[in-house]
Amino acid sequence: MRVFIAGIDGYLGWALAQYLTARGHEVAGNDTYLRRQWVAEMESVSALPIFSMEERLEAFHERWNKALIFREGDLLDYEFTRGFLEEFQPDAVVHLAEMPSAPYSMMDQKHSVFTQHNNVIGSLNILWAMKEVCPNAHLVKLGTMGEYGTPNIDIPEGFFEIEYRGRKDRLPFPRQANSFYHWSKVHDSGNTMFACRIWGLRSTDIMQGVVFGTQIDEMGDDPRLRSRLDFDQCFGTAVNRFCCQAVIDHPLTIYGRGGQTRGFLPLRDSMQCLTIAVENPPEAGEYRVFNQFEECYTVEELALKVQEAGKDVGLNVGIQYYDNPRAERDEHYYNPDRENLIKLGYQPHHDVLAEMRIMLRDLMGHKERILAHQQILVPDIRWDGSRRKSGLLARDVVAK
Amino acid sequence: MRVFIAGIDGYLGWALAQYLTARGHEVAGNDTYLRRQWVAEMESVSALPIFSMEERLEAFHERWNKALIFREGDLLDYEFTRGFLEEFQPDAVVHLAEMPSAPYSMMDQKHSVFTQHNNVIGSLNILWAMKEVCPNAHLVKLGTMGEYGTPNIDIPEGFFEIEYRGRKDRLPFPRQANSFYHWSKVHDSGNTMFACRIWGLRSTDIMQGVVFGTQIDEMGDDPRLRSRLDFDQCFGTAVNRFCCQAVIDHPLTIYGRGGQTRGFLPLRDSMQCLTIAVENPPEAGEYRVFNQFEECYTVEELALKVQEAGKDVGLNVGIQYYDNPRAERDEHYYNPDRENLIKLGYQPHHDVLAEMRIMLRDLMGHKERILAHQQILVPDIRWDGSRRKSGLLARDVVAK
Repeated sequence: MRVFIAGIDGYLGWALAQYLTARGHEVAGNDTYLRRQWVAEMESVSALPIFSMEERLEAFHERWNKALIFREGDLLDYEFTRGFLEEFQPDAVVHLAEMPSAPYSMMDQKHSVFTQHNNVIGSLNILWAMKEVCPNAHLVKLGTMGEYGTPNIDIPEGFFEIEYRGRKDRLPFPRQANSFYHWSKVHDSGNTMFACRIWGLRSTDIMQGVVFGTQIDEMGDDPRLRSRLDFDQCFGTAVNRFCCQAVIDHPLTIYGRGGQTRGFLPLRDSMQCLTIAVENPPEAGEYRVFNQFEECYTVEELALKVQEAGKDVGLNVGIQYYDNPRAERDEHYYNPDRENLIKLGYQPHHDVLAEMRIMLRDLMGHKERILAHQQILVPDIRWDGSRRKSGLLARDVVAK
Repeated sequence: MRVFIAGIDGYLGWALAQYLTARGHEVAGNDTYLRRQWVAEMESVSALPIFSMEERLEAFHERWNKALIFREGDLLDYEFTRGFLEEFQPDAVVHLAEMPSAPYSMMDQKHSVFTQHNNVIGSLNILWAMKEVCPNAHLVKLGTMGEYGTPNIDIPEGFFEIEYRGRKDRLPFPRQANSFYHWSKVHDSGNTMFACRIWGLRSTDIMQGVVFGTQIDEMGDDPRLRSRLDFDQCFGTAVNRFCCQAVIDHPLTIYGRGGQTRGFLPLRDSMQCLTIAVENPPEAGEYRVFNQFEECYTVEELALKVQEAGKDVGLNVGIQYYDNPRAERDEHYYNPDRENLIKLGYQPHHDVLAEMRIMLRDLMGHKERILAHQQILVPDIRWDGSRRKSGLLARDVVAK
């Protein structure tokens, strides 16, 4: 199949280009390197060194013996987006080109507006471009499990059948996101569902959990083929950030009591799932939702797992609890469905500890990069719009 | 109370400024005259002549013996918005400054993007500005009944208690809007609900039905105090457009079979309701939703009422059925609640025929303005993104 990846220079995009190519698909993509700029703005770097797109493309060509079709450009540039899709004529468009950080979107007015503008208008441009130049292609849209928030009932996959005052209907499941970033993806979901209904587009909206991992097998040993791995407060998500902290002997930074439950999945599972979605398109006009995660864990459970994996590779890992800069519940009901991908063949990896050991070993070779930026490991972006470093909570260091 | 009206030059804004002033409130507002430009872009005019803001302000001062505080400026200009609110220190902000047309938002990529950008970012700027400079003020945000779409169950006011798989929760009612404009207001609702939760802002999100009417009593006889009244396919909503058609002997243009049921209300009821909302603010942190309409009618019922009102004032009014340019259901269940405003004292006007007679008499004096633009009375903006004038359906002219 011909697969277009929007945001191909990113954490998921660069891995997916290789994963799909290894399976015989034809890949093209765009990027405008914003993720590199955002992480620099956070005064951080990727813990794993990443290479320029020119070097990446060269390595890609060497390894797969074919060229990756790449163009630098922004989805906000409609003529660019439309033109590229028109020429490439994809069977599937995987949209990974959004600003993906909750704290980044909460920093101030400018960052909120940037986030919603970038994400909502970029996605709207993809919908219009697909309608105009490749209406039969399948849009695999990256949403987030965070769209749902933490309701006190089970979370189905996008839609639910309900009875209300004696009548029944199948309705979109209500969204209760917890940052302007997460809301931007809720907005996208609405626009995408609508475009499918009125224009007959087909789309899979992926409510993905938090991804962790430093590699997939397809990357081999060439450092130029590795994806980035962030550890700053904006772009370093829980497990990735914990593993980076572990290798420099910084205590893992749990926000609040760590009872927040979320769906998580290793990078290799994310690749497996996205590929399943790509290879099993819905019917024309169909808008379907997949909840995509391996398992639900509390943040504290994952910290304890990193601690255990650390022991296996010779690291003494501490844990500390910081006052939570986010306005979120610490203890809550959380029971999302995850059946659609399983039905299509998704085999969850399940060995989280093994994955963490790989991550720690990968990161131990790059300690100095993390050490050089350790002053950014404690968060200071707060949901009330202020900046103040989180302090330690009374319930303090867990014994090493 | 000190009330800030965003979009004070518009159909609702200009009327509300007078309605509130007549009740002793202190009013300020902004506008950037976009509605005037959009209607010109549709090659139309307001059926009632409207005056420049300078002339309006002069007439306002003459009638109310106090100045209306007005500044030209755009909500997209954050410094302007923040600065104006900071100086005025409102008790309430009534946000009427969005692009309000479904067909306009469906025209093409540019108009879709314009609509969502203008509405979502403008509203986000208001939220940030209120948080920063007047966090205790009450945001009265104009949403639309169109956010809900037409579900097969009753429509509560914003939230509902449901049981699902044996557990209960109170959740936002799912939205299923039917244009990129209506979705922009869904997006606003999400952002506003979130801002109330995390920042302690207070907001009333008004899900308003379709407004009709040429005047409120407060305008008196001064033509400079009159609001605009549009009849083009984008900004002329059902009853307003029908009344304009009636006075020039053009058959009323029903889209499809006219079975679409919606909530409607006269302009004077809209003013009454918005004022009730302003005068009864919610608690800090509270986000509440009011469904605001007088009664539900099918489009055909309203056309028949215009026909009847026409007879009363000596007009023979024909009705024609055109193929529907919108992708919407013609027959559907529709039963929205409307209790919150009633509890606070809203007294629905109910005499729709009397209101229509006033409208027809007002408009008969301006026939030539409508006649000069009669070529735009049949719609051509279609939900599939094409432009093609609607044709007559087989079920044809209803006898005069």
